[in-house]
Amino acid sequence: MGPADPALAELLARFRAGGVGALARAISWAEDGHPSVAALLEALHGETGNAWRTGITGPPGAGKSTLVDGLARHWVADGRCLGLLAVDPSSPFTGGALLGDRVRMDRSTGEGVFVRSMASRGSLGGLSLATGAAADLMDAFGFDELLLETVGVGQAEIDVAAAADTTVVVLTPASGDGIQAMKAGLMEAADLFVVNKADTAGAERLANELEMTLELRPSGAPRPPVLRCVARDDQGVAELAAAIEARREDDRASGRLDRRRQARDLARVRRVFSESLRARLWDGDGLQDRAREALAAGERPDSVALKLAARVLQRLQERAS
Amino acid sequence: MGPADPALAELLARFRAGGVGALARAISWAEDGHPSVAALLEALHGETGNAWRTGITGPPGAGKSTLVDGLARHWVADGRCLGLLAVDPSSPFTGGALLGDRVRMDRSTGEGVFVRSMASRGSLGGLSLATGAAADLMDAFGFDELLLETVGVGQAEIDVAAAADTTVVVLTPASGDGIQAMKAGLMEAADLFVVNKADTAGAERLANELEMTLELRPSGAPRPPVLRCVARDDQGVAELAAAIEARREDDRASGRLDRRRQARDLARVRRVFSESLRARLWDGDGLQDRAREALAAGERPDSVALKLAARVLQRLQERAS
Repeated sequence: MGPADPALAELLARFRAGGVGALARAISWAEDGHPSVAALLEALHGETGNAWRTGITGPPGAGKSTLVDGLARHWVADGRCLGLLAVDPSSPFTGGALLGDRVRMDRSTGEGVFVRSMASRGSLGGLSLATGAAADLMDAFGFDELLLETVGVGQAEIDVAAAADTTVVVLTPASGDGIQAMKAGLMEAADLFVVNKADTAGAERLANELEMTLELRPSGAPRPPVLRCVARDDQGVAELAAAIEARREDDRASGRLDRRRQARDLARVRRVFSESLRARLWDGDGLQDRAREALAAGERPDSVALKLAARVLQRLQERAS
Repeated sequence: MGPADPALAELLARFRAGGVGALARAISWAEDGHPSVAALLEALHGETGNAWRTGITGPPGAGKSTLVDGLARHWVADGRCLGLLAVDPSSPFTGGALLGDRVRMDRSTGEGVFVRSMASRGSLGGLSLATGAAADLMDAFGFDELLLETVGVGQAEIDVAAAADTTVVVLTPASGDGIQAMKAGLMEAADLFVVNKADTAGAERLANELEMTLELRPSGAPRPPVLRCVARDDQGVAELAAAIEARREDDRASGRLDRRRQARDLARVRRVFSESLRARLWDGDGLQDRAREALAAGERPDSVALKLAARVLQRLQERAS
């Protein structure tokens, strides 16, 4: 483990005393890959598992932020404290999130809500790992509810949303969202659907289409309900909160929550394992230079890669035998 | 290499004779991970590098397919033969692409155009690898132009688009596309912007905003032009084709094309290398069981992963010393 980092001990003390600044700094450690972040997460591991993680995803313009604000207000009014993690793909010019903390804070619901944006900074695996760490930190900090809001409809967003305990997919009648959602694999990730802007043309048709499509879903997990909301007017938000809570009770009672969290942990092991091997072997072992030479000599990328991988595996097997 | 696959020899002969059915089957091999696909790609490696790869990406509803059809018609009228690869994230119920070949064929432009959809089937790395292989196959088949059309605005789509020789980002005034594009990292990937539906309200403002934002872009590569199109009415399509061709001449002459293709090859080596190691080490070496046991004993996923990775690396180092 190496010598203890005095900054770590200090941060932990302030974190456990409920210092929001300490939480913010801890999340920055996770984003930046600070050398003590592993020790920090290890120290707090026993304090996680109490916050409920609700993922909110869907296409741009679906009104996710407005819905999230409504849910936040609802839960705060109910006396819960709440963390909101807004996950953005990277902003190319700034390297950071466009949806900055400050912007969201202005729109936000005041007391009891901690808002944080995360950006990918170009590394897909990195975003997913840092988001998981940030969610663990917010969980350990003691929030009752964690909202994970994503931007966009790509695989990264689905990964993030699918790492939640409950995943809400928000759609609107605009832009063929229904079929886009099916394409993007959101149907599989969803525990609940919201048709937002339910007062606009085509909303009821979209909701009906969704319900019909969901009947084709293989049985096993409960069929996701399709809720109608007008988030801008706070219509349907209380019903959404109730549906999330009903699903959560059901998942707890049936053991589905435990299975889902186990699968999430195993997926994380696999991801950290691969990322760690790749970083050490690819970045640190002269392999890039060898790859460049082979490519310059006209070899095909795949065969270069497989040869390099085979050499690594052969060394492992020789050692093992 | 193992014993020669008679199916491979037969497929290669039909492929080289220009059989479209052989091309379709070769792409299926790449999608399905057929055991002879590596040998197939190896055999065709010397025949690639002649097709120009244009990536078309942008948010759902931006009119990408209409624009792609317009470009296809334009190039076919110019006597070029053209392959179109439509990249979809996975469709959860069918495991395949919703935008099936058949659907696109109906809309398509007839002679000289080969249309194929690819779906991710849940594996992000897999999509990117299979798409690269399919593009190589279409390239070797002898198309002059390759269009890579993506659905969605996630990282997977950006990866695919960024693997093209020229990347076109299509936006519309709807749904705050401009800011969404910046969020999704599309600004960095783009060589050309199209403001589609340029006859609708807000289009000119979006185009102006884009142009102003692009002035902030670090210098080096040429500044991407912002074109106005109404793809539905074929307005601006010829201008887009001309802009793509102008950019291509410039990239060829400046050596930028070579650098870009080298970077793309190196990224592919890295990806195939990691994927191959992960598959062999994680799936094949009893590591999953060890991970499950450690998690069940209450260990934190990250520390389980790092311990497993450290053990692999240690075995490699012991062998090397």
